[in-house]
Amino acid sequence: MKTPQAKARTPRSLVRPHVQELQAYVPGEQPKVKGLVKLNTNENPYAPSPKVLATVQAAVDERLRLYPDPTAEKLRERLARLHGCQPDQVLVGNGSDELLALATRAFVEPAPEGALAHWSKYPSHSGPKLNVRTVQYFTPSYSLYPVLADIHAAAKVAAPLESDFSLPTLLKLRRGKVWNFYAALTFITTPNAPSGRGYPTAELEALCQAMEGVVWLDEAYAEFADDNALSLAFKYPHVIVSRTFSKAYSLCYQRVGYCVGHAELIAALQRIKDSYNVNGLGQVAALASLDDLTYYRANFRRLKQARTALTADLTGLGFTVLPSQTNFILARPPTLSAEVWQGKLREHKILVRWFGAYETRDYLRISLGTDDELAALLKAVRAILKD
Amino acid sequence: MKTPQAKARTPRSLVRPHVQELQAYVPGEQPKVKGLVKLNTNENPYAPSPKVLATVQAAVDERLRLYPDPTAEKLRERLARLHGCQPDQVLVGNGSDELLALATRAFVEPAPEGALAHWSKYPSHSGPKLNVRTVQYFTPSYSLYPVLADIHAAAKVAAPLESDFSLPTLLKLRRGKVWNFYAALTFITTPNAPSGRGYPTAELEALCQAMEGVVWLDEAYAEFADDNALSLAFKYPHVIVSRTFSKAYSLCYQRVGYCVGHAELIAALQRIKDSYNVNGLGQVAALASLDDLTYYRANFRRLKQARTALTADLTGLGFTVLPSQTNFILARPPTLSAEVWQGKLREHKILVRWFGAYETRDYLRISLGTDDELAALLKAVRAILKD
Repeated sequence: MKTPQAKARTPRSLVRPHVQELQAYVPGEQPKVKGLVKLNTNENPYAPSPKVLATVQAAVDERLRLYPDPTAEKLRERLARLHGCQPDQVLVGNGSDELLALATRAFVEPAPEGALAHWSKYPSHSGPKLNVRTVQYFTPSYSLYPVLADIHAAAKVAAPLESDFSLPTLLKLRRGKVWNFYAALTFITTPNAPSGRGYPTAELEALCQAMEGVVWLDEAYAEFADDNALSLAFKYPHVIVSRTFSKAYSLCYQRVGYCVGHAELIAALQRIKDSYNVNGLGQVAALASLDDLTYYRANFRRLKQARTALTADLTGLGFTVLPSQTNFILARPPTLSAEVWQGKLREHKILVRWFGAYETRDYLRISLGTDDELAALLKAVRAILKD
Repeated sequence: MKTPQAKARTPRSLVRPHVQELQAYVPGEQPKVKGLVKLNTNENPYAPSPKVLATVQAAVDERLRLYPDPTAEKLRERLARLHGCQPDQVLVGNGSDELLALATRAFVEPAPEGALAHWSKYPSHSGPKLNVRTVQYFTPSYSLYPVLADIHAAAKVAAPLESDFSLPTLLKLRRGKVWNFYAALTFITTPNAPSGRGYPTAELEALCQAMEGVVWLDEAYAEFADDNALSLAFKYPHVIVSRTFSKAYSLCYQRVGYCVGHAELIAALQRIKDSYNVNGLGQVAALASLDDLTYYRANFRRLKQARTALTADLTGLGFTVLPSQTNFILARPPTLSAEVWQGKLREHKILVRWFGAYETRDYLRISLGTDDELAALLKAVRAILKD
């Protein structure tokens, strides 16, 4: 028998160089102690509808031994009816996070091995007008995008939003020389996270029209907004819009997201996804949710009211609260730094999220809770202000 | 406003060239009509244990609104105890399919864009002794491997098993000049699918010792076998073993698989996975399954007995049945071609799987069913033989 050769090689050397260097995405804290008020991960504070829970419970039977529908056909048909498109314009994912990752792999070329540090030396092979290695996004927005670009060994373009988190004008983007109109894939979180700001569809449309590559409108919070840009996915063959059942439909646990767009782009994503990417009970839960939209629309209204009330209350206590179209607010606290506020709120058993990046370090991101949870937050805020 | 530029570009041109050409993996048929005996996709014919169903039902509550544990910590701890290793040597996936796909992305360099047809001209940058672009597997084995390699734009080496589906000796592999001892990633299905043959751990170990890259032992069917090679994942830093809850624990619907190996390789896979890759109810179901191993071990014994009985019965009817260590058998039918047999069995409402590849075209793959299902199969076989 041959002497083991593998011993000459360290496990590390078997890992692709850029994967060795990756920084993992940091999810919001899921506390292990009970009794905390959890306003840190933008989950919906209300349970799924009783009908959804009953439907999922009833589906927990012998069928668990069978593979789920690999293409979530019923759910895609249902979503197509809801949005007025064809089922082949819809793809369902293991949460919308999976769909964002698929987009990098379907539309963006990775840098050649070892070339990450000087990738720009490698010319594009796909014609002069598309930077096929480039993933682009605004900052701040969903912090997963740069992680996905790094995982895929893509080049990143991070372009700053305005200081109030609004979209820069096209003119400004052109003059700024950071924005890349030829990026293979551009992610736009709309409404924006972590700021909560909504973007007018006309502004998004003008930006989409100016782009050469795929534009992915990440509408994870659209159901809490007054407007959305879904129509752009049907109007422009290079625009995809994604949504999720996690937030609006209180189904984070179940991992169901979807995207809509041109059938040819959807087919590309479909070809590279895991065969059975969406678990069966998740499909059952999502379908049942769409059967009970009355419940969820009341839920959206209630959260919008809570948003208005919380904004007023925190403003009254000296916070600067940005306008929000989502199920969270971004607020600049008075008297102490936002980081200190986060720590003090945690002492009061209230979890909120603080992002240390330059643009957001003065703010707290506070997910909308139930009335009781928000009352507890306000009580804690008043106590901290008195200290 | 600028004239829309995107119209000059077709949606197809926005898709990476190799993704445009991909052939999707073809899952086994999931019939839409009721009343068929489904022996075509290797699902377990028995339901999950009553305790597992009750535990999952009880978990369908308000928690669905929350994100699941992103790293499935409790389940990893439990699996680590079961297998006698540390939790950081275990990764849980959205089915083991996700883990196989992650392996291609963590350990294998894709071909540079446009270079697929002549990738071998591109020298490896990772030292002279590893073919960093190569995914390798035996044929026939799990038909997903070449699909995953194509999705990743990796080079494929497909080496034939012996005609009885046993492993070639190292000497034969060396002389054959097809097998690549320097492949970055080698997948081995053990016990083999679609043949059902089990491989002695000593043979697998000798092969692992001779390999320079990562060796992935895909033990999707190991619980139905008399032996397994899990110990190799702890003995060799370049060996990973994957398992799934789909087959042995009747949880296909829930999408839970896992792999074990050196902590550094596991960490690489962890860094590139989707943050919340495993749905919460799947984690609950998997944990509950490990709490009721008595039920499942009885299930394994029952299926092994069915395997022995079915092998004897079909042999008596003129079939050549290969020895199986899995929950299915591969059998060469008499008198008619295997493809014709598949069609005739379908007329009798029995689904089995036929693979058109050269090595398997003379065989039917028949998943083990309940006693009633296998009685229905034998009745149909006898009827077809009489025609």
